[in-house]
Amino acid sequence: MTQSSEVHLTSRPQGNPVATDFEIVEVNIEDPAEGQVLVKNIYMSVDPYMRGRMRFAKPNELLMGGAVGKVVASNNANFAEGDYVSNGSGWREYFLSDGADLSKVDPSLAPLSAYLGVMGMPGLTAYGGLLVTGEMKDGEAVFVSAASGAVGSVVGQIAKIKGGIAIGSAGSDDKVTQLAEEFGFDHAFNYKTADPLEELRRGAPNGIDIYFENVGGAQLEAALTHIKPYGRIPICGMIAHYNDGDTLTPGPRNLMETIYKFVHLKGFVVSAFEDQREQFVQDMSGWLSSGQMKYHETIHEGIENAPGAFMGLFTGSNNGKMLVRLAED
Amino acid sequence: MTQSSEVHLTSRPQGNPVATDFEIVEVNIEDPAEGQVLVKNIYMSVDPYMRGRMRFAKPNELLMGGAVGKVVASNNANFAEGDYVSNGSGWREYFLSDGADLSKVDPSLAPLSAYLGVMGMPGLTAYGGLLVTGEMKDGEAVFVSAASGAVGSVVGQIAKIKGGIAIGSAGSDDKVTQLAEEFGFDHAFNYKTADPLEELRRGAPNGIDIYFENVGGAQLEAALTHIKPYGRIPICGMIAHYNDGDTLTPGPRNLMETIYKFVHLKGFVVSAFEDQREQFVQDMSGWLSSGQMKYHETIHEGIENAPGAFMGLFTGSNNGKMLVRLAED
Repeated sequence: MTQSSEVHLTSRPQGNPVATDFEIVEVNIEDPAEGQVLVKNIYMSVDPYMRGRMRFAKPNELLMGGAVGKVVASNNANFAEGDYVSNGSGWREYFLSDGADLSKVDPSLAPLSAYLGVMGMPGLTAYGGLLVTGEMKDGEAVFVSAASGAVGSVVGQIAKIKGGIAIGSAGSDDKVTQLAEEFGFDHAFNYKTADPLEELRRGAPNGIDIYFENVGGAQLEAALTHIKPYGRIPICGMIAHYNDGDTLTPGPRNLMETIYKFVHLKGFVVSAFEDQREQFVQDMSGWLSSGQMKYHETIHEGIENAPGAFMGLFTGSNNGKMLVRLAED
Repeated sequence: MTQSSEVHLTSRPQGNPVATDFEIVEVNIEDPAEGQVLVKNIYMSVDPYMRGRMRFAKPNELLMGGAVGKVVASNNANFAEGDYVSNGSGWREYFLSDGADLSKVDPSLAPLSAYLGVMGMPGLTAYGGLLVTGEMKDGEAVFVSAASGAVGSVVGQIAKIKGGIAIGSAGSDDKVTQLAEEFGFDHAFNYKTADPLEELRRGAPNGIDIYFENVGGAQLEAALTHIKPYGRIPICGMIAHYNDGDTLTPGPRNLMETIYKFVHLKGFVVSAFEDQREQFVQDMSGWLSSGQMKYHETIHEGIENAPGAFMGLFTGSNNGKMLVRLAED
């Protein structure tokens, strides 16, 4: 028997999530039965997509999300004590698993926390969204919004690795500086104070080939206006719309731009890229060790701070991947 | 020397085009020089896409558009007097050509006027937009707006020929009746009085695979909500937005639906389908002669009525392809 804390959603958020939407609950976890393992989570992830799921949450639902943990007791021949595993059972300290939802990760290729960032879901989202859904060809001009985030910063860096032009937007001048100076973007701007269309014209005078969409709103409109014929818009997220209540924010007024320019908008989620995962792990670990790929993490300590970490996503309080450390390794 | 009337645009329309935006001008056409032919137009087409081009018209510009005519004098070895040719020089009675912009048409395969409709640009737009851009597979459920129009009615009929479900919307109860009774749509509704989402649920309880977009607005939102995973939205036009002034109408509020459903929105114009034209002519003439493909025409008489025919497109006064007959054959 192991005592564990976990986070429940006590009410569906109205607009931005607030502290009273969440509750920390103490539970007892049984010892693993035949075929089971007990996992102690070390890092858990908070991501904007979780907000979308909360629209459909049942009363007092235990939240789910990506995590990386360690097998601390095993009754399953496929896992040994001490194995590190990525899993979809975040928002809790311990859990039992039959192993089906666990993937072993190799801490010698990258730090454990990176498996929730560049080596994990956000990294594969960026990689597949840009190269598979976005069909980026070497040398193309790529604009990405929320560019200092866990996905966006990888998108821009891959665009550079592929010989392209990287343009990024973020919500503070500090982040904009970071995009240009640390992540090597060719052009970056603060979407809160700059005009996105002017900035795109400055960063890519001949037009953009790809807009990697994370935000929605005015940036999507600017991208539609400035995108080249046959341009592609992989739609990864629209964080500007996630906290819409019953009154939804209108979409772009210039969707007609797609017609004469043969532009494609393509919704996707990371599950589409399982076939590319092996190549992704190989490419990304190579880029990490060569220093071509950089990343930042904002790490909160302790499960009691998980709701606050999640809420911070919507106020831009993170710098890079937002994580919560649940335990020492 | 031949006297000819032609239509000029005297001012860029503000919102819906009005009669005073147009002027009929009398001109004299020289006899054909070496290498030239003189064409007498018999039918000309008016189409919604022309409204878009008018945003960029020069002062007093001679309008352009599809037409079918007859060679009445030839100094070009490739064309004989009496040849029928489709051309891009509508909005005028006569014109000179070096032949580069003319395509001979075969009046034994279909009536001459059909080369401006089902056998011409609108037909190829429907065919390519549904089968190439929309990637329709046999048996899929297809929703098309402006379904009684020259493009929409062909989209629905091809969907039926391919074993699918055809759902269409139109702007009057008479047109809705025609969709169901003449064109064989499985379900049809009046978008002015019905709720599009409810109608889609009624017509395709399991969801639609394709929304062939001609209109924009509430119908696009309903389609995004009711489209199945991996659905496709070929964007042919957005007639609801064509007469937007400086204040553009907002786009769909639920573009986020694309993400988890992997939906693709794909702008296109008919020029993409030149490679399919031969197959199209063969398929379409076969469907016409077998009676599987029906069409309607609204024909105005005389070039002086061409502006009125064009304006009628935006008030829904046409039933099927809107044409102007400029001369007897």
